[in-house]
Amino acid sequence: MAPPSSNQPADAAEAAAAGAISKVLVVIAMQTEALPLVTKFQLVEAPAEESIFPKGAPWTRFHGDYKGLHIDLVWPGKDPLLGVDSVGTVSAALVTYASIQLLKPDLIINAGTAGGFKARGAGIGDVYLASDVAFHDRRIPIPVFDSYGIGARKTFATPNIVKGLNLKVGKLSTGDSLDMSPHDESAILTNDATVKDMEGAAVAYVAEMFSTPAIFVKAVTDIVDGEKPTAEEFLQNLISVTMALDKAVTEVVDFISGKCICDL
Amino acid sequence: MAPPSSNQPADAAEAAAAGAISKVLVVIAMQTEALPLVTKFQLVEAPAEESIFPKGAPWTRFHGDYKGLHIDLVWPGKDPLLGVDSVGTVSAALVTYASIQLLKPDLIINAGTAGGFKARGAGIGDVYLASDVAFHDRRIPIPVFDSYGIGARKTFATPNIVKGLNLKVGKLSTGDSLDMSPHDESAILTNDATVKDMEGAAVAYVAEMFSTPAIFVKAVTDIVDGEKPTAEEFLQNLISVTMALDKAVTEVVDFISGKCICDL
Repeated sequence: MAPPSSNQPADAAEAAAAGAISKVLVVIAMQTEALPLVTKFQLVEAPAEESIFPKGAPWTRFHGDYKGLHIDLVWPGKDPLLGVDSVGTVSAALVTYASIQLLKPDLIINAGTAGGFKARGAGIGDVYLASDVAFHDRRIPIPVFDSYGIGARKTFATPNIVKGLNLKVGKLSTGDSLDMSPHDESAILTNDATVKDMEGAAVAYVAEMFSTPAIFVKAVTDIVDGEKPTAEEFLQNLISVTMALDKAVTEVVDFISGKCICDL
Repeated sequence: MAPPSSNQPADAAEAAAAGAISKVLVVIAMQTEALPLVTKFQLVEAPAEESIFPKGAPWTRFHGDYKGLHIDLVWPGKDPLLGVDSVGTVSAALVTYASIQLLKPDLIINAGTAGGFKARGAGIGDVYLASDVAFHDRRIPIPVFDSYGIGARKTFATPNIVKGLNLKVGKLSTGDSLDMSPHDESAILTNDATVKDMEGAAVAYVAEMFSTPAIFVKAVTDIVDGEKPTAEEFLQNLISVTMALDKAVTEVVDFISGKCICDL
């Protein structure tokens, strides 16, 4: 067993002492997206009886050490009645809030699949780092409330990750529907978005509330402005695109390892 | 000073000991809706430095004792950047979650203004108790996910409140927009809703997660299927309808005082 190399601390405590990032919170909406990363980072599930989350919440946490980082991977879990992943902004905001309070992460990575706009250069399997987030389905046509509803914010800037990993960069627009109504489309255009998801802007809202840096890694499963119905294309590509997503997230985590937050 | 009457315990602790409801959490979205109730119940604001909520959250709490009940009234507060009330599902879910965890209420009352459908009998100033809640802007056209998105649930049944206070009863549909797109309208029709708000179903989702009974008192500020633009009518009627709302909430709280949860 080789000793740890000088720029990769052996554990999270050593990393923190050296000013490096020690605790990373990965927030993912769907089990299918999450499990390959659980395997990759060799995370273990926190058993229900030892859950840090309150009884009743379906939220699930896997955790472990990986290259000097302590990684907590959370997802909102299965709906207790319906058995499907608890996707969307409300569940994502809740699990992000609870995780920030209980785990005090140095950095949040919100990873997931997304729809992409081919008119803006997106193709199936492309992985984007979001420069900005906003909502496209919170229309409140009263001055200032309109801006609150859109909730546009810049994400934590990571120029070195972008340069080092050669990721695509684009704006992300979030809404609670998988499909896209004409009203949504118009708002997404106004938001100048290249990718569309169902959680990002809600995670960003909570992260900003508690001054936690957050980045958004989104892989394109379906072309929103294409010919195929979104739901069909999404399900068809979910597994293969999740592989591209997990590769990108692993590269981001490898890049982060041993670095200070200001070096991203 | 007269001693407390036999069916109105002097304080929340006595009430609890007698099996009666002792802690009521009132969740309200807007300051304008909340302040008259603060005055009515003679609640005091928890100062920021003693807040039970984590630093960074704009959530505001007023509390006090009223007719044998301990009342906590929370609202999501003003957006720190924009200064407007943090309306909508994400903020309402977060403040409800944090309040349930920290205050362990026996009952939640989500009170607020709403749009009403005149085709279903609603008029300006009418106050409804919601029998059911659902979302109308979470379209996920994949089997089972579609039901999760709609999130339809019955509210805690309170037949004695309905009978005793002669309130109107109808279904409530929730979405993050003040206006109503054609897609929203179609979903609201499917939800069979008489009133439309921006928080109810999210509050219900969190309350159910932690098995906390929740009721929904909604006063109609604007007619959704009428001639006037929603935003204009909403602002025009907000103050006067808030008075009707506060009267109804006070009647509900008076009714609850000294009663067991099973007597509602």
